[in-house]
Amino acid sequence: MQTSLRSSALGLKSVSSPKALRSVKVPRAVRVMASSVSTASPAATVEVELGDRTYPIYIGSGLLAGGDLLRKHVPGNTALVVTNETVAPLYLDRVVAALSEGGEIRVETVVLPDGEEHKNVDVLMKVFDKALDARLDRQTTFVALGGGVIGDMTGFAAASYQRGVHFVQIPTTVMAMVDSSVGGKTGVNHPAGKNMIGAFYQPRCVLVDTDTLSTLPDREYASGMAEVVKYGLIRDADFFEWQERNVDALMARDGDVVVRAIERSCVNKAEVVALDEKEGGVRATLNLGHTFGHAIETGIGYGEWLHGEAVSVGMVMAADMSERLGWTDESVARRTLDLLKKFNLPTDVPECMTVETFEKLMAVDKKAANGKLRLILLKGDLGGCVFTADFDARVLAETLDAYVRK
Amino acid sequence: MQTSLRSSALGLKSVSSPKALRSVKVPRAVRVMASSVSTASPAATVEVELGDRTYPIYIGSGLLAGGDLLRKHVPGNTALVVTNETVAPLYLDRVVAALSEGGEIRVETVVLPDGEEHKNVDVLMKVFDKALDARLDRQTTFVALGGGVIGDMTGFAAASYQRGVHFVQIPTTVMAMVDSSVGGKTGVNHPAGKNMIGAFYQPRCVLVDTDTLSTLPDREYASGMAEVVKYGLIRDADFFEWQERNVDALMARDGDVVVRAIERSCVNKAEVVALDEKEGGVRATLNLGHTFGHAIETGIGYGEWLHGEAVSVGMVMAADMSERLGWTDESVARRTLDLLKKFNLPTDVPECMTVETFEKLMAVDKKAANGKLRLILLKGDLGGCVFTADFDARVLAETLDAYVRK
Repeated sequence: MQTSLRSSALGLKSVSSPKALRSVKVPRAVRVMASSVSTASPAATVEVELGDRTYPIYIGSGLLAGGDLLRKHVPGNTALVVTNETVAPLYLDRVVAALSEGGEIRVETVVLPDGEEHKNVDVLMKVFDKALDARLDRQTTFVALGGGVIGDMTGFAAASYQRGVHFVQIPTTVMAMVDSSVGGKTGVNHPAGKNMIGAFYQPRCVLVDTDTLSTLPDREYASGMAEVVKYGLIRDADFFEWQERNVDALMARDGDVVVRAIERSCVNKAEVVALDEKEGGVRATLNLGHTFGHAIETGIGYGEWLHGEAVSVGMVMAADMSERLGWTDESVARRTLDLLKKFNLPTDVPECMTVETFEKLMAVDKKAANGKLRLILLKGDLGGCVFTADFDARVLAETLDAYVRK
Repeated sequence: MQTSLRSSALGLKSVSSPKALRSVKVPRAVRVMASSVSTASPAATVEVELGDRTYPIYIGSGLLAGGDLLRKHVPGNTALVVTNETVAPLYLDRVVAALSEGGEIRVETVVLPDGEEHKNVDVLMKVFDKALDARLDRQTTFVALGGGVIGDMTGFAAASYQRGVHFVQIPTTVMAMVDSSVGGKTGVNHPAGKNMIGAFYQPRCVLVDTDTLSTLPDREYASGMAEVVKYGLIRDADFFEWQERNVDALMARDGDVVVRAIERSCVNKAEVVALDEKEGGVRATLNLGHTFGHAIETGIGYGEWLHGEAVSVGMVMAADMSERLGWTDESVARRTLDLLKKFNLPTDVPECMTVETFEKLMAVDKKAANGKLRLILLKGDLGGCVFTADFDARVLAETLDAYVRK
């Protein structure tokens, strides 16, 4: 069984400049609205259309400077900002000030330890402890300020506190802006598996202030770009080509170009999520490179590599395998490799990984349903992919053999 | 602001016998289907209509004897039965056998300690531990076998495991059959408050085998009957009068009469839930007697009295207060007291409770939103009630004074 999806099938027009990219017509699932660029006014807004759970993603510079936009999405008179020890000294005061402006909202805060190793139920309880200690009721709003871990934990806390309170996301990493802020996946890890305890829960809005990227370390920035490249590869050839042309501006964190990259990524993810909110089919294509990547993350030990770094190598391997299968012409794998390298992302498998390690770890991958390993592989012209178990296993072995260090 | 609700407004016909009660026409929210009474075939089915989350409640004798009905609602090929140490020796084998029949479903089990004091996140983790240890995937079904605590915990575990798996309820107490099995409220307690962490999550079906009531202790049985009386008082005068006529048969646990009582209770709750799934308005009326009752439960220490016992006294106090306010004629309070007494439920406030204790504990009640205590009080003819803060506080003081032991 194959799940095939191409951006052209969704009516995304061919575009050739960042300007045109911005005003791209998206006929379903997502509405992109142009708006004037000024302080505290978003340069772009992506509406994630999910019926009565539809919400906007505001993207732009200086959005945290004024509180109007944020407060519009806080319906009650209390809020709990959840952040971590790294982000708190940088942006917590600014967010508390934005929420407190006008004096109508009582703002509480909780600062969690930073890192994936703290994404567990014990740390989650600190959010509930604080909320109850501050006597926050069902009308309160939980505000996630940070990267993917904070977003996932705060979202699950919001889904579960008194059976569900309001939720707003303020992502401060590229990864959180282009990936975890869209789709409603929330949760924590269990010792036996990542994200094993969680909920699908949508925010009332996502506020992406691109100014927060100024403090993001280079490795973190590049890691997020791996997901941006992914959207181009799985369904949006025009976006991939736009990235090829704008890679220098993206690496220089040029404000307008960064806004466009985040916007287009969110549009792509939002479309896929709208088609498949609970991950039955096409949503799996968002995991391009992730099966190889998860094996690398696990194989070298979590925390050694950033998620996007592992996904980068995973995408290189998926593109290589697709080419060996004869499903793409050779330019696709080469261009994928070139673009990821320009983003300073790793494209080689770490030394410690053997073929056996890959095979063992990929076998337990969640996607290995009913004993058959399904992979997302590229197929046809740039921007096309399939999610399939229908491939020659010898080709997978060839790819592993080619990439594992001898 | 008052939220008024009467059964007549929902088109429930006047009926005068258990037979007629069974075939009552319910034009909205709920469909009651007659079906033949035979082993493993439900004597009654209540459809809880919630759009794409609509599910049936099957009620009858011998439903656990055959597994067809149960397995119809287990879509994958694995199930995890969650129960407690009290229920496991009585019914776990029977449920495992019913699920395993035919050999298509791998059945895992987890037995939790019994009691409200174990309804917490630590014990909840045992369910996740077991599910992961048994490698249960997203297509699995969690089956709750037990009373309200097991139902609430298993439901929340099902809502959260891998962001949501299938859920089936097999309640074994009257309380769970007529109250917690309808409405989708799931969750666990936090040291700072009951049910503070949870989700709204609907089961795929509820299977009420009335044979399981044969092992239910008398106090537990009576406690559940308090909620049955409640449905009559808040919105269904005909049901209240039917209970008055059938109280002896109910106390004798007469099979057919018990089925009718559970069915009509579920219909009433399902209608209210369909009108107000997330508890914005009329759903609050289900808490008749609960504000007084919670104060009693907390005042004497949780676990001393059963929930329904505290609610029984709470309903007596609410009826008394309604009469003092002149909102009902005196027969309503008297009939309420008489019926509860016939069910062997307590109708007097425990000795340790003072007026001050009541006032302090009622003030922190969740319903005390914005500093104004709102109560569910009876109003008008039997079967009518309001949820209101608009009452003379001196009358509340009079009721407290009348019921507290001198």
